[in-house]
Amino acid sequence: MSQPNPSLIFQTLNAHQQTAALKAAIELDLFTAIGDGSTTPDAIAHRVKADARAVRILCDFLTIMGFLSKAGHHYALTPDSALFLNRKSPAYLGSIASFLGSEPVIAPFRDLTAIVRRGGAAPDATTIAPGHPVWVEFARSMAPLTAITAQGIAELVGASSGRKMKVLDIAAGHGMFGITIAKANPQAEVVAVDWPEVLEVAWENARAHRVAERFSTIPGSAFDVNFRSGYDVVLLTNFLHHFDPATNEQLLKRILSALDPSGVVATLEFVPNDDRVSPPAAAAFSMIMLGTTPAGDAYTFSEFDRMFRNAGFSDNTIHGMPPTEQSVVLSKI
Amino acid sequence: MSQPNPSLIFQTLNAHQQTAALKAAIELDLFTAIGDGSTTPDAIAHRVKADARAVRILCDFLTIMGFLSKAGHHYALTPDSALFLNRKSPAYLGSIASFLGSEPVIAPFRDLTAIVRRGGAAPDATTIAPGHPVWVEFARSMAPLTAITAQGIAELVGASSGRKMKVLDIAAGHGMFGITIAKANPQAEVVAVDWPEVLEVAWENARAHRVAERFSTIPGSAFDVNFRSGYDVVLLTNFLHHFDPATNEQLLKRILSALDPSGVVATLEFVPNDDRVSPPAAAAFSMIMLGTTPAGDAYTFSEFDRMFRNAGFSDNTIHGMPPTEQSVVLSKI
Repeated sequence: MSQPNPSLIFQTLNAHQQTAALKAAIELDLFTAIGDGSTTPDAIAHRVKADARAVRILCDFLTIMGFLSKAGHHYALTPDSALFLNRKSPAYLGSIASFLGSEPVIAPFRDLTAIVRRGGAAPDATTIAPGHPVWVEFARSMAPLTAITAQGIAELVGASSGRKMKVLDIAAGHGMFGITIAKANPQAEVVAVDWPEVLEVAWENARAHRVAERFSTIPGSAFDVNFRSGYDVVLLTNFLHHFDPATNEQLLKRILSALDPSGVVATLEFVPNDDRVSPPAAAAFSMIMLGTTPAGDAYTFSEFDRMFRNAGFSDNTIHGMPPTEQSVVLSKI
Repeated sequence: MSQPNPSLIFQTLNAHQQTAALKAAIELDLFTAIGDGSTTPDAIAHRVKADARAVRILCDFLTIMGFLSKAGHHYALTPDSALFLNRKSPAYLGSIASFLGSEPVIAPFRDLTAIVRRGGAAPDATTIAPGHPVWVEFARSMAPLTAITAQGIAELVGASSGRKMKVLDIAAGHGMFGITIAKANPQAEVVAVDWPEVLEVAWENARAHRVAERFSTIPGSAFDVNFRSGYDVVLLTNFLHHFDPATNEQLLKRILSALDPSGVVATLEFVPNDDRVSPPAAAAFSMIMLGTTPAGDAYTFSEFDRMFRNAGFSDNTIHGMPPTEQSVVLSKI
């Protein structure tokens, strides 16, 4: 038993500084500067147009958090920072700070007490409002985070088989889940559903990845639009966590009618264990939903299984996506 | 070498939720509710007047962070939470959320990028402005955190000797450092310096601890007021970190003139090692100073030794205050 110690309390009350520090470093493009060989506070400050003393404090803080290493007065990128935070890396994902650090995602947590009393986000502060602009930011900034899971889903649904494949990508955002299947399977055709402004980003990506001729879109709410039918694959990525189970079951019934009898639904989610406190990253995702939606949650596999069964899907299986903290639930009729 | 993994980036961009969650739990007095035997989401929600689903998500998040444990649907306090976060515990320090979570301390980190470019807090956003109201909040809420260090300083300066002892408590805040010496030594007399509104809190504490007849105050700035002279002990707790070294040296020279030739200055600070990235909690303190002051810092012992030597103190020693992350520098002429 260790001695009583208030340091976890102190550290947690200051944890908001960690978000601020990483966001600032990304906005200043400090990791790219270090990657390019500016390794002292003076050199980095000159390169990123900031103050040297402040850069030193920021770099020390980033070192403490594990984003940099330090030897003497020189900072270096860790392997993960070199891969993910140097803008010159093909795996750069610093852009996710633009969504995760955006006002609609951050602001609710300035008064979480009120949200816990109320039971969810205020009606005027929820990100599930029709056409909420945060989803354009999401589409523009979160695509890099999906490379591993998009590839994993393409494999799970057998994209490499090359067979004819009609894919419905619901709440497609950047569109990369469907586009990845289209790239893996020249016979795949993708229909993406999202708000009109968001679909413009998906179109940009479809063109950039040269699958635009097999890409089409249905603008509008996934709860309202006519999906049409005969899909072999329905993608439901990072969507169900925004809603309560009853709302999700309504959507799943609509999806069932659009699915070919031999088709499959691939649901990508943070799926905690039944204890709801492990694994930590998946379980902690509930908090984002508490802050930004009226009734969303990170659902366990038992809960997904129940929702899908209630909607008519009898065969549900879960598949980990390591090293990410997400899982895919595959559902068949 | 582990596989590349963006989860530290994701976790850090969401770290602000940790601050929000602990602050909300303290504001709702959720730890006291659990300590009193309300251990399920429904029972806790009823007791703290909040929504049961939201309470479940909050409690799961607190469990993930290490503030609660969970078995089935029941939550329990960890030993540290029982000691420090149950309002019925004599060591309760939940009040520190009122200062550490206050707008002047939190707000600068909403745009740390601007601060790093500028080199410090904006002139209108610094907490060192004369009479800044945040120091009344500090005095009202941070006293519980000082129990261990105040006791440690009283021992270091030999309060228990019972000899006549004139104590100057600079930027006294709640006054507890001087009051702790006055309680340990019936011969000690304490003079506290701070803004007038802050000294009202110190007076309340002096009366509550029955040392008011040996307590007096000098309202005003530590850089301007007449300290008078002949002090055996000068307390300089959590103050020098707000200023640049040149400013501190000016203050130390003023202190030197107020000190008895055989007297001692006790400086309580977060003191990082020369590498400035260890130990983590002490080194990370620089970030608070970057955000809230124009030129403050967490100084190393070498830097304190230099400032004190430049001001005329030739004998400087450092003393850890475990289990806290702070240290005391003792300085003699």
